[in-house]
Amino acid sequence: MASRKSLSEANSKPGNALHTNFDVDYVIDYRFATTNKRQAVAQFVKLIQCLNDVGLATEVRNGDNCGVLIFVKIESDMHLRAEVYRSRVQDWLYGVRTIAPEKDMKNSLEGEPIIEAERLRMVYLLITKPTNEGGAGITPKKGEWKGVESIFALHDHTFNKAWIKDIASKTYLSQRDLTAIRDRFGEKVAFYFAFIQSYFLFLAFPAGFGFCSWVLLGHFSPIYAIVNALWCVVFVEYWKKQETDLAIQWGVRGVSKIQHKRPDFKYETVVKDPITGEDVKFYSPVKRLSRQLLQVPFAIIAAFILGSLIATCFSIEVFISEVYDGPFKKILVFLPTLILTVFIPTLTVALTGFAGRLTDLENYETTDSYENAMISKIFVLNFITSYLPIFLTAFIYVPFAQIIVPRLDVFQVMVKAFAENEKQMSAPKKGFQINPDRLRNQVIYFTVTAQIIGFLMETIVPYLTRTVFRKAKEVKAKRATKNGGPPNPSTGDHQEEKAFLVRVRNEAELTTYDVTTDFREMVVQFGYLSLFSVVWPLTAVSFLINNWIELRGDALKIATQCQRPVPWRSDSIGPWIDALGFLSWLGSISSAALVYLFSGDGFGPGGDPWNIKVWGLLLTMFFSEHIYLGVQLAVRKALGKIDSPGLQKERSERFAVRRQFLQESLGQEDVENAASGDLAASKKTRGYTLEEEARESTLRGHGTPGERFWQRQQCQLETILVGKTYIEQAAPSPSRTKSKKEL
Amino acid sequence: MASRKSLSEANSKPGNALHTNFDVDYVIDYRFATTNKRQAVAQFVKLIQCLNDVGLATEVRNGDNCGVLIFVKIESDMHLRAEVYRSRVQDWLYGVRTIAPEKDMKNSLEGEPIIEAERLRMVYLLITKPTNEGGAGITPKKGEWKGVESIFALHDHTFNKAWIKDIASKTYLSQRDLTAIRDRFGEKVAFYFAFIQSYFLFLAFPAGFGFCSWVLLGHFSPIYAIVNALWCVVFVEYWKKQETDLAIQWGVRGVSKIQHKRPDFKYETVVKDPITGEDVKFYSPVKRLSRQLLQVPFAIIAAFILGSLIATCFSIEVFISEVYDGPFKKILVFLPTLILTVFIPTLTVALTGFAGRLTDLENYETTDSYENAMISKIFVLNFITSYLPIFLTAFIYVPFAQIIVPRLDVFQVMVKAFAENEKQMSAPKKGFQINPDRLRNQVIYFTVTAQIIGFLMETIVPYLTRTVFRKAKEVKAKRATKNGGPPNPSTGDHQEEKAFLVRVRNEAELTTYDVTTDFREMVVQFGYLSLFSVVWPLTAVSFLINNWIELRGDALKIATQCQRPVPWRSDSIGPWIDALGFLSWLGSISSAALVYLFSGDGFGPGGDPWNIKVWGLLLTMFFSEHIYLGVQLAVRKALGKIDSPGLQKERSERFAVRRQFLQESLGQEDVENAASGDLAASKKTRGYTLEEEARESTLRGHGTPGERFWQRQQCQLETILVGKTYIEQAAPSPSRTKSKKEL
Repeated sequence: MASRKSLSEANSKPGNALHTNFDVDYVIDYRFATTNKRQAVAQFVKLIQCLNDVGLATEVRNGDNCGVLIFVKIESDMHLRAEVYRSRVQDWLYGVRTIAPEKDMKNSLEGEPIIEAERLRMVYLLITKPTNEGGAGITPKKGEWKGVESIFALHDHTFNKAWIKDIASKTYLSQRDLTAIRDRFGEKVAFYFAFIQSYFLFLAFPAGFGFCSWVLLGHFSPIYAIVNALWCVVFVEYWKKQETDLAIQWGVRGVSKIQHKRPDFKYETVVKDPITGEDVKFYSPVKRLSRQLLQVPFAIIAAFILGSLIATCFSIEVFISEVYDGPFKKILVFLPTLILTVFIPTLTVALTGFAGRLTDLENYETTDSYENAMISKIFVLNFITSYLPIFLTAFIYVPFAQIIVPRLDVFQVMVKAFAENEKQMSAPKKGFQINPDRLRNQVIYFTVTAQIIGFLMETIVPYLTRTVFRKAKEVKAKRATKNGGPPNPSTGDHQEEKAFLVRVRNEAELTTYDVTTDFREMVVQFGYLSLFSVVWPLTAVSFLINNWIELRGDALKIATQCQRPVPWRSDSIGPWIDALGFLSWLGSISSAALVYLFSGDGFGPGGDPWNIKVWGLLLTMFFSEHIYLGVQLAVRKALGKIDSPGLQKERSERFAVRRQFLQESLGQEDVENAASGDLAASKKTRGYTLEEEARESTLRGHGTPGERFWQRQQCQLETILVGKTYIEQAAPSPSRTKSKKEL
Repeated sequence: MASRKSLSEANSKPGNALHTNFDVDYVIDYRFATTNKRQAVAQFVKLIQCLNDVGLATEVRNGDNCGVLIFVKIESDMHLRAEVYRSRVQDWLYGVRTIAPEKDMKNSLEGEPIIEAERLRMVYLLITKPTNEGGAGITPKKGEWKGVESIFALHDHTFNKAWIKDIASKTYLSQRDLTAIRDRFGEKVAFYFAFIQSYFLFLAFPAGFGFCSWVLLGHFSPIYAIVNALWCVVFVEYWKKQETDLAIQWGVRGVSKIQHKRPDFKYETVVKDPITGEDVKFYSPVKRLSRQLLQVPFAIIAAFILGSLIATCFSIEVFISEVYDGPFKKILVFLPTLILTVFIPTLTVALTGFAGRLTDLENYETTDSYENAMISKIFVLNFITSYLPIFLTAFIYVPFAQIIVPRLDVFQVMVKAFAENEKQMSAPKKGFQINPDRLRNQVIYFTVTAQIIGFLMETIVPYLTRTVFRKAKEVKAKRATKNGGPPNPSTGDHQEEKAFLVRVRNEAELTTYDVTTDFREMVVQFGYLSLFSVVWPLTAVSFLINNWIELRGDALKIATQCQRPVPWRSDSIGPWIDALGFLSWLGSISSAALVYLFSGDGFGPGGDPWNIKVWGLLLTMFFSEHIYLGVQLAVRKALGKIDSPGLQKERSERFAVRRQFLQESLGQEDVENAASGDLAASKKTRGYTLEEEARESTLRGHGTPGERFWQRQQCQLETILVGKTYIEQAAPSPSRTKSKKEL
């Protein structure tokens, strides 16, 4: 309700294309470049009919690239309100909300107004839900709707501009800022910003400590390694708590259980859910488990393929940079980097496709579980490509170089064309000196250079590409109008709408925002910090600076480079938290190994493996890991004791709900008695019934031995007298106390 | 309600002392042997008054040993029902029950009758709760009620007899049997029986596999070690699921959060609970955390004290049995065992007392958390005394004997008195042959002999002791009556009650049942299976037989040797599950080490440490542990996918509750619409409001650009026509399709 009227009131000048959305909820980009006219028209008619059938008003305008833009909004406010209310009731039925929505719909929606994210989500579901669930069933780029290129909401540029300006000017994003992000972009995106914000704040400590350590302690300091591992543990456990808290505050805890179903889900049978009584599509979890086991060979094969490629290029690089000594050396040394840059993305894409097919096979029911499974698989690929090079340097090259390098002659074939004579290509048989800076340089590359390059690739390059394409498009359009041919799509635009439609057509060309990519960056970055920062303690400083820029860069990306993301809900950052935990744990082992191997002179074993005491290495890793696990348990317990406002709120709500229920049924006074165990009330009950029962017993007479047992001392006084007699008979008088003890 | 009338109807013959309890709920044993008459009488009077004030009827009879027996029962049925109902409402308010009790107390209690355990628990709480909470405030053996020796319920011997007969005749205890135990003895005891039953059934597998392995694979087989570790993981994870399930079925899930408060809890301030609005006594959790850290030095010191004692005795035993070769050898070899048997219990008791004071210092709020903290501390002591001897043999003696034994000459002082000459006492300087069977014999001792001895100590010996004491008491009583002196307490008994009172006096002499002791036995036994069964694979067979007897022996113990336990509630087996997990994990490491050290000839390193490849050992342990952790994760995930009937029941109840709430507030039809997202209903809403809004828009006129935007194509047909035009303009005709693609 909020956005519509205010926007139209605020900016009704026709020129403000960026500041009004004309009340449009969504734009459907329908392309027909590859279908013939008749089919395209038929599809289009069906599309419009489907949309209208579910209560969406449509307007069509011309689009670029053989497409039309269909503008969609909910026809009736009442309909939207009913949908939102229905969704809130379902949340409550399935345990996502603790407090029930008010019984009166009107009051409920006045008490809890519809936020923009909720509205957009509802409309998107209305467009894409299957027809038997009440939606229009439009599935972009799939099935019968192949022609639908995308369904996107229009950016709220007023908000975006203010937002970017706001976060660019300050460092700390408060709870209110995060909730504002959630109100516009949904919980899934908001969790990302909350995470990167937390991560950024936490990075202050290793940045400071790392700097001091770099100045005072040098490289490979055990103290730094211990403090670093401790920081990793505390951060991960803290974030677990924090995301639960946020989920409760945003009212989405447990929402991953009821996320919408995948249309591709192939069910075996339809069974009746024993809980809700509804019909549920069923697919045997045992079958799925057996298919999930295929992940293991997939991971092994992927690791092998990528790993061998990286290892080969690594060996070539070592050969060229440290053995070869002929002309073109400075150019040839980039050869392996070139090979990697060409092959790694290709292989990654191929393996990702394979992972996608495998995940399809696992036949998940909800989109969330599908995405999570994909993330787990892709993480294996990321792990290999991001960390294997440094692992190779640290644990293969430095310890074993003297054995391996002489055998690298096999790579002579790479440089035969350039070398002038044999001598330049052969490795010295002994006395090979390793390059002691290789490891550090590599870490600096990954933590500084690669981050900068990544940022440029992510933010600047797409901007440039888009600007260039836009200009090219304009030029082409001008030329096309001159030479005849199909008219410029914007020629038919109404004067009022011209600027607006140009903007919409540009937004239709933008990419879809995928929050997973951004999470992946952050998690991989965390891995560098956890696994390898003992090599170069300034890692955290670099990340601190990078992340400040990253957060704002990502906000800019969402606002300007991507279509407005559909505001999906989410109750956590998903499987990334497991990835963080894993990297943190692995870091405890790898840091210990690095410290052991390289402590002292910082040069490590110098390529000679016989210098290494393997048992010492394994013992260090053993202790380091177990101390890490112990600390993790302790931190978890300690944080668990500290009550978080979110959980408190949850318990408070549940208690209030139940108390209210009691009040309505039992009456206020009884509730208080029931809850507090009031003595007076029980006394009152007792007094009343005792008389009753006393009357009954006199009527019944003396019946069983049990009843007679209880009537020998009918009142308190009798009991006291009898007892007194017993005691005085048996109790020791002061003089006889001693003799009793002896007995 | 159940027991009273039926018992009295069934067995009203006076002679059946064992088959009727005369409707007695509890017996309070008040002793005054150490207080003078006046004080004793005053205390007694106060006791009776306190009991009567809370609605308990009292009868007093004479007791043994300067004591009186006060028989207590609830005076009014109505009062009991009110108490039970109040307790159920509180359960529901605090989230322990999912379904609210019916609003009408009468209906609620008819639908859910009061079980015997519930009744007894209520009465016990009524006797012992502090006066400001509505109880009588009787704290046995503490504070002002030092004279109260014990408060116990009378055994239901009819049930006990039938119970023992029943479980002695069958092997499998069904769910019904466990629920019958819970109905009589409470959840805490029932969980023990459920656990030992599960453990027994699971033991069938390692018993069978161990037997086959012992026959076919011999000792120290890696296959056995792997299968054993896998079994441990599956059992522990299965039990975690099972205990949650049982807790839900018995309606006690989460009950540990609201268990009754410790009277010894020293609070700092009284604050208002933000959730319930009640006054809550507060003690800073940070302060408690800092005191809990004292557990670490405690564990270290206890480990050191017990460890050094055991190590010393171990060395002495090695010296005497393998170095010494003179007279009295066969007797002297028991000297260290004697030292251990004398000192270990003494030290354990002293350390347990110290642990108790430490736990008092930690100032827990509820009895449950206090007990759990004690259990954790005592587990350290148990761990040292139970497993250290075998650890010493396996990892110190066998690998290092050749270095250590020659240095054992220091123990010559022990045998100087007996030895005939120097030669018998000195160790050979080299060529010492270790006893290869020591390890296996030790394991066999712990897993067979010690179990049998423990069972005899636990069941048979107390029985004999008690019978002897009883006879002695009778003889003494006869002698005392002859010589004059205080009369036999039973002389004043009424004829009808004579047998009954003799029985009650005997029950007053019984010990209190502590389920923790039994759990400790089982967990320590599990530890042997997990840690050391590679040494002797028949371990599980021995345990299988032992546990069959143990379950029935423990039932017999409860029924005949102990006072009837107060039926406390509990929602799990407490900290023992963590102990099981720890032992299971430690087993993965220790089994791997044992297999590595002893594989091959089964004789291991033969005392010579230079035979051992330490790196190989550490590597084996490393891989074994991590594979174990991976398997544990996988098993946990797999079991998590399988829905358990208990959790399903919980979700079903919660859904039903909310649905009912909705029905009462929204009306049936609306609920179904709300829950199912009915299309027809939304269509109806839409139809109505569209007319309304159409009417409004014509009244308002054409206002903003946004509104004009949406009115250019006012109905579906217009939209379709306009879109068709666009498509036909831009879409490729079949011949032009190719050229469009090239553009």
